[in-house]
Amino acid sequence: MSGPGRGIRVALIGLGRAGGFHLASIGALPGVELCQVYDTNDERAKEVAAQTGCRVAQTPGEAVGADEVEAVVVATPTQTHYDFVVAALAAGKPVLSEKPLGSDLTQIDTCFAAAAASGLPLLVAFQRRFDPTFSAAIAAARSGELGEIRFIRSVSRDHPIPALAYLETSGGILHDCVVHDFDLVCQIAGEDPEELFCFASNRIDEIRSIGDLDHLVVALSFPSGLLASIDVSRFGVHGYDQRVEVLGDRRMLETRNPAETAAAVSDRSGTTLAPIDHSFPTRYRDAYRLEFECFLACVRGERESPTTHAQVRLNHMLADAAMRSALEHRPVRIEEVDDVA
Amino acid sequence: MSGPGRGIRVALIGLGRAGGFHLASIGALPGVELCQVYDTNDERAKEVAAQTGCRVAQTPGEAVGADEVEAVVVATPTQTHYDFVVAALAAGKPVLSEKPLGSDLTQIDTCFAAAAASGLPLLVAFQRRFDPTFSAAIAAARSGELGEIRFIRSVSRDHPIPALAYLETSGGILHDCVVHDFDLVCQIAGEDPEELFCFASNRIDEIRSIGDLDHLVVALSFPSGLLASIDVSRFGVHGYDQRVEVLGDRRMLETRNPAETAAAVSDRSGTTLAPIDHSFPTRYRDAYRLEFECFLACVRGERESPTTHAQVRLNHMLADAAMRSALEHRPVRIEEVDDVA
Amino acid sequence: MSGPGRGIRVALIGLGRAGGFHLASIGALPGVELCQVYDTNDERAKEVAAQTGCRVAQTPGEAVGADEVEAVVVATPTQTHYDFVVAALAAGKPVLSEKPLGSDLTQIDTCFAAAAASGLPLLVAFQRRFDPTFSAAIAAARSGELGEIRFIRSVSRDHPIPALAYLETSGGILHDCVVHDFDLVCQIAGEDPEELFCFASNRIDEIRSIGDLDHLVVALSFPSGLLASIDVSRFGVHGYDQRVEVLGDRRMLETRNPAETAAAVSDRSGTTLAPIDHSFPTRYRDAYRLEFECFLACVRGERESPTTHAQVRLNHMLADAAMRSALEHRPVRIEEVDDVA
Amino acid sequence: MSGPGRGIRVALIGLGRAGGFHLASIGALPGVELCQVYDTNDERAKEVAAQTGCRVAQTPGEAVGADEVEAVVVATPTQTHYDFVVAALAAGKPVLSEKPLGSDLTQIDTCFAAAAASGLPLLVAFQRRFDPTFSAAIAAARSGELGEIRFIRSVSRDHPIPALAYLETSGGILHDCVVHDFDLVCQIAGEDPEELFCFASNRIDEIRSIGDLDHLVVALSFPSGLLASIDVSRFGVHGYDQRVEVLGDRRMLETRNPAETAAAVSDRSGTTLAPIDHSFPTRYRDAYRLEFECFLACVRGERESPTTHAQVRLNHMLADAAMRSALEHRPVRIEEVDDVA
Repeated sequence: MSGPGRGIRVALIGLGRAGGFHLASIGALPGVELCQVYDTNDERAKEVAAQTGCRVAQTPGEAVGADEVEAVVVATPTQTHYDFVVAALAAGKPVLSEKPLGSDLTQIDTCFAAAAASGLPLLVAFQRRFDPTFSAAIAAARSGELGEIRFIRSVSRDHPIPALAYLETSGGILHDCVVHDFDLVCQIAGEDPEELFCFASNRIDEIRSIGDLDHLVVALSFPSGLLASIDVSRFGVHGYDQRVEVLGDRRMLETRNPAETAAAVSDRSGTTLAPIDHSFPTRYRDAYRLEFECFLACVRGERESPTTHAQVRLNHMLADAAMRSALEHRPVRIEEVDDVA
Repeated sequence: MSGPGRGIRVALIGLGRAGGFHLASIGALPGVELCQVYDTNDERAKEVAAQTGCRVAQTPGEAVGADEVEAVVVATPTQTHYDFVVAALAAGKPVLSEKPLGSDLTQIDTCFAAAAASGLPLLVAFQRRFDPTFSAAIAAARSGELGEIRFIRSVSRDHPIPALAYLETSGGILHDCVVHDFDLVCQIAGEDPEELFCFASNRIDEIRSIGDLDHLVVALSFPSGLLASIDVSRFGVHGYDQRVEVLGDRRMLETRNPAETAAAVSDRSGTTLAPIDHSFPTRYRDAYRLEFECFLACVRGERESPTTHAQVRLNHMLADAAMRSALEHRPVRIEEVDDVA
Repeated sequence: MSGPGRGIRVALIGLGRAGGFHLASIGALPGVELCQVYDTNDERAKEVAAQTGCRVAQTPGEAVGADEVEAVVVATPTQTHYDFVVAALAAGKPVLSEKPLGSDLTQIDTCFAAAAASGLPLLVAFQRRFDPTFSAAIAAARSGELGEIRFIRSVSRDHPIPALAYLETSGGILHDCVVHDFDLVCQIAGEDPEELFCFASNRIDEIRSIGDLDHLVVALSFPSGLLASIDVSRFGVHGYDQRVEVLGDRRMLETRNPAETAAAVSDRSGTTLAPIDHSFPTRYRDAYRLEFECFLACVRGERESPTTHAQVRLNHMLADAAMRSALEHRPVRIEEVDDVA
Repeated sequence: MSGPGRGIRVALIGLGRAGGFHLASIGALPGVELCQVYDTNDERAKEVAAQTGCRVAQTPGEAVGADEVEAVVVATPTQTHYDFVVAALAAGKPVLSEKPLGSDLTQIDTCFAAAAASGLPLLVAFQRRFDPTFSAAIAAARSGELGEIRFIRSVSRDHPIPALAYLETSGGILHDCVVHDFDLVCQIAGEDPEELFCFASNRIDEIRSIGDLDHLVVALSFPSGLLASIDVSRFGVHGYDQRVEVLGDRRMLETRNPAETAAAVSDRSGTTLAPIDHSFPTRYRDAYRLEFECFLACVRGERESPTTHAQVRLNHMLADAAMRSALEHRPVRIEEVDDVA
């Protein structure tokens, strides 16, 4: 699609936090150029245009529909993803979208149906898969190197506590946060969970005040007998803490958090290693770039999008099931929450 | 009680695996001497007597009742603990017993009632509390150093897979194994769980053949909103794997497994640290000795037994509740399983 | 100097390995734009120009002298640094140059004299100072956090063995490689060594064949009584291994090598951590970018160049002194090799 | 020699620090019994006799010469080792002696000549060889697993600073302390060093006041081209720090210090691991027991003493050579200090 010597021309909708990561990826990667940006904050859009030489679209539709645009990246607030993804696919453009694709299974199904009908790649930003450490864990599990997988633990802890303004529109801890753990656990398991149970609680006053949960633990069972647990907190006091542990019958794998430096200082009170990454942006900087590279490869037709309809749908259902389990105080079979099927 | 210059004179009932640990502790510690041993295997008893100069009792009752005996250690097979503990307490002797004290709450209550009535120390071998690493974790949590505790994870994995002969009389994975995790989690939490949920499965053919479980995950909730998870496997492929993680709002604590040596070898495939301890005996050698020291201090009246009636009882109930949850596929409130109360 | 809204316009002389790092830094950093490139390989220069939109200079002099050029980066082969640095400074341009500045103290003195006379920043690429881990070590030592410094060990090991073609023009292991350890040790020490002793050897046939050394150990003494050792190998079998250890009387600091991922795999043979970085480019990617940021700040007059005349000169003398020690088999006082003074 | 069912009967001369380790080993090991003790402090000797049931010898000669004594352990102050070792060997008794055997090469030669003439085992307490971590390092190097050995670094740091009373009779840092590093480096190298250079300094006022050194660095060269460095401090602020690093052309090995527990606590300032062992006694407790086991095996004729005449002699020469190097400020060939040959 892109001419000889030129990169894929991308429109970027949304210039907030995730948009910033995509801007950095576009700047660092060969084979891509930014040609249109849109943001509700026009100042911000103009600033980016001044730095990069791209155009400022007056509406999202203008950005998505422009002839020169070969691919669309959606990084807007959660509630608007669906409309922009649908519009971009309707305009015949491959899409990389922040999750969630939509607010319910029907919207997710609609997006993937549109992509399938037109043969367009649709990549949903489960960026943890592209993190070098987590992708090593997935590869080790899928290769058989670990043997038969018998237990998986995924843990996620935010740092710092996200801003209330963000949390209020985040869709809740399960769809905002735990959905990444569900995706990771499934990638490692190589099979779909059949049932789960969830305890959730509130320990942080501000978060309770907006009706969201801040701590939870989910137990999962799989058809093979594989068991898993996920524990999540909105406050990892020590930093942005995201790890997975996989017990196989040949090997056990654990991941740790990258540290800010590789220096250690010792005295009689112990040996202190540098703190782990402060927060999401530093931890997933590389993952965002690798995800963008994957998207470009999808656009060039070199590979399929790794985020399949089935998995994106399942992740949504797992979040719904966990919420129902926490509310109804009982184990929930995943199939129970598929109100479309 | 012991004369000047002499140690506390102990009778040791049972000379199997746990008995061996106690023999080693008695050999290594000042302030204790072995004066009687009993085992159903008379050869074994004679061998120990030859090495240590103690007497071989012809019956457990003889050992327990002998005037010279100042304290009794019960390390017999699971089913017999109760009878020997009751007999020793009836004979007015302080008792250190391997867990479980009995097969149900009534037996546990009976033992502690007897100890309370006669003012005798009764120490139940939840030895993990005396492991230097786990006791550092408990101390950090109880001191407030970690702040408000919000999540606890305990993991236990056997290595190697225990012998079927042992498993058949072990009382099942929950009472044999997970009960230690329950005890540890409660020590760290500083409060009692109110409800739990358990998924369990069979992945190991031999263990399925005897009707026991080999993998399970338990989610727990506490009155404060504290959540916890426990995951257990009968086969830690990499070694005897027992760790805990505690998330507070001031600090996060994790423990690792001690390694056989502190040597690391690197090449282009990575850096390989020495394996973790192979199995229970090496991992808990120090814990057993420290537990025995604690018992001696209890006998001398220098401290109370740290394994209270309430906690030993609760541990039993938690194991029962988890079994009920796994069987009935529902969360179980701990109070549900208190059929004595 | 640069107009409002534009970055500092840089000429880059030399587009080999180090030039590639600088290109990446220019691409990733705000506040800089590439306006001229020169390389003896004209194809390579045209390729870079096509990607970045800059001009190809026909001679280094053209690049250095062009009015639009506001700063010059010298990344050519070792022997040519001196001429280009002198030319750039003569043209009134701030310079960032790969080390060494020249082949002897006189050339180094000439460069710094020119920079001083015209008030232009001259930054010499001792990039290790900008590595986050090493800069944390320097900061800890200089802040007093470690107390009185009593011993420093620096170790450097290449991976893979550098190409013979590179080694033949590298200036020898001492000026090519160990000079970085000398710079680091002095930054940490906060004082200048007064004497050193060096053993060197050949274990790698190819390197012996070109008359260079491949392994050496240097012991250093400082006026305060501080001692240090440096050990260097041209072949770190396990990867690119660069670490420092600092013993103070308040704390001890050690650095480790960054690993490729934070995943660890365990079985009965041990726990295997991911390999350390393969080689120079991955290890010092961040350091090169931070060094370039520092250079831009120097150009903008926001800070002084941290690589002072005195230190660059001392690094050269230390390498000379170590060579003399190895050849003459005796300790050498640093002042002995100052043939200019 | 020992009758059926009984252990080897040992006389222990000296009940100070090292004597205490040997007492613990004798208590913990099968196959040995303590039958005589001697100490210049008669109270201490009587106390040990009361605890263990052994006899108190009135003179060292009485202990060494008693018919019932089958082996002698010498753990007296440094200056007296030689006389007791000679006496014990003359009495036909195998000997385990703390190092040094004597104050010069002649005394060392005399001891080994006596042992050789009578075919008696003579084990000198270079206990570091028996430490599980260091013995793994030696085994890895000697097995060829690491490939051709190209560099070795050994580091030793005391904690706390030894008492002046001890230091005054210790024989100086080289013979007291660095001799262990020399022994370890040679075991790993599998060849004898041919030359060394040493810088030494004084940073600790009290130690300077008694004319001893407190910090030093030694560089060594070997016939194969292998290089090594040793750095030693009388004050490891963070704990008793003893490590070795070995670079081979197939693998690199490093050892770390055992930590007091395996707990780690994290907050935003970093992750703090438990402190390393406080001091010599905890670090080498296991090594002392394993060394004693080795001695018993030597006495039973099951193995040769691993501390050969050649190595014990070489260790002494290396310490002398390093002292001469530090004093004369020049590299010293090891053969230079062999004033007996």
